[in-house]
Amino acid sequence: MVRVSILYPNKAGARFDFGYYTESHMPMSIRLLGAHEGFRGVTVAEGFSGATPASPAPFIAMCCFDFESVKDFLCAFTPHAEVLQNDIAKYTDIAPIIQFNEVLLNVACGRAPAA
Amino acid sequence: MVRVSILYPNKAGARFDFGYYTESHMPMSIRLLGAHEGFRGVTVAEGFSGATPASPAPFIAMCCFDFESVKDFLCAFTPHAEVLQNDIAKYTDIAPIIQFNEVLLNVACGRAPAA
Repeated sequence: MVRVSILYPNKAGARFDFGYYTESHMPMSIRLLGAHEGFRGVTVAEGFSGATPASPAPFIAMCCFDFESVKDFLCAFTPHAEVLQNDIAKYTDIAPIIQFNEVLLNVACGRAPAA
Repeated sequence: MVRVSILYPNKAGARFDFGYYTESHMPMSIRLLGAHEGFRGVTVAEGFSGATPASPAPFIAMCCFDFESVKDFLCAFTPHAEVLQNDIAKYTDIAPIIQFNEVLLNVACGRAPAA
């Protein structure tokens, strides 16, 4: 499984509208990308601190899209790339850091890893 | 739900032993932290490219620990902090970027978000 991670660096004075992001942008993204059979899930998290409670979070938001393969992601994303990318300016002026990852380990609650 | 994210920046010449990380460090982490009733899951991903196939991944590895609350995480982690932190040098010389996040959205395969 591959994970496409989209990280928004927490820059002083930057704009990030969580209302628009979670109520409009992400539902649209999930409607457009989630229809592909290779879609495996997505999470969105809002950074609230660094390693210590008083330190700022290095990233204001992190989004992870999981797909069965890179090919599946590209097949799902490419037809909607322009619409989705043009929508970013509506919630932030931060240029996200995007990367592709191979998921090596995925343990859900209560399930122990193989020894 | 809170997510503790541990990101390892991809630095030239840095050391990262995925064998030790996935076969020793992470199983120990999961055994020690996963026993807590607030544990919700963990993922580990290996970055293989940036936004384009030819660009390097900004992070060589990303780990996300999910817990019901910060209190649950601290309760699970604190008794084992020294053991876990002392183990890091066995697989990498990279100082990880750690942050605490609130999980705003968590959609699994095939489950559509609320409209």
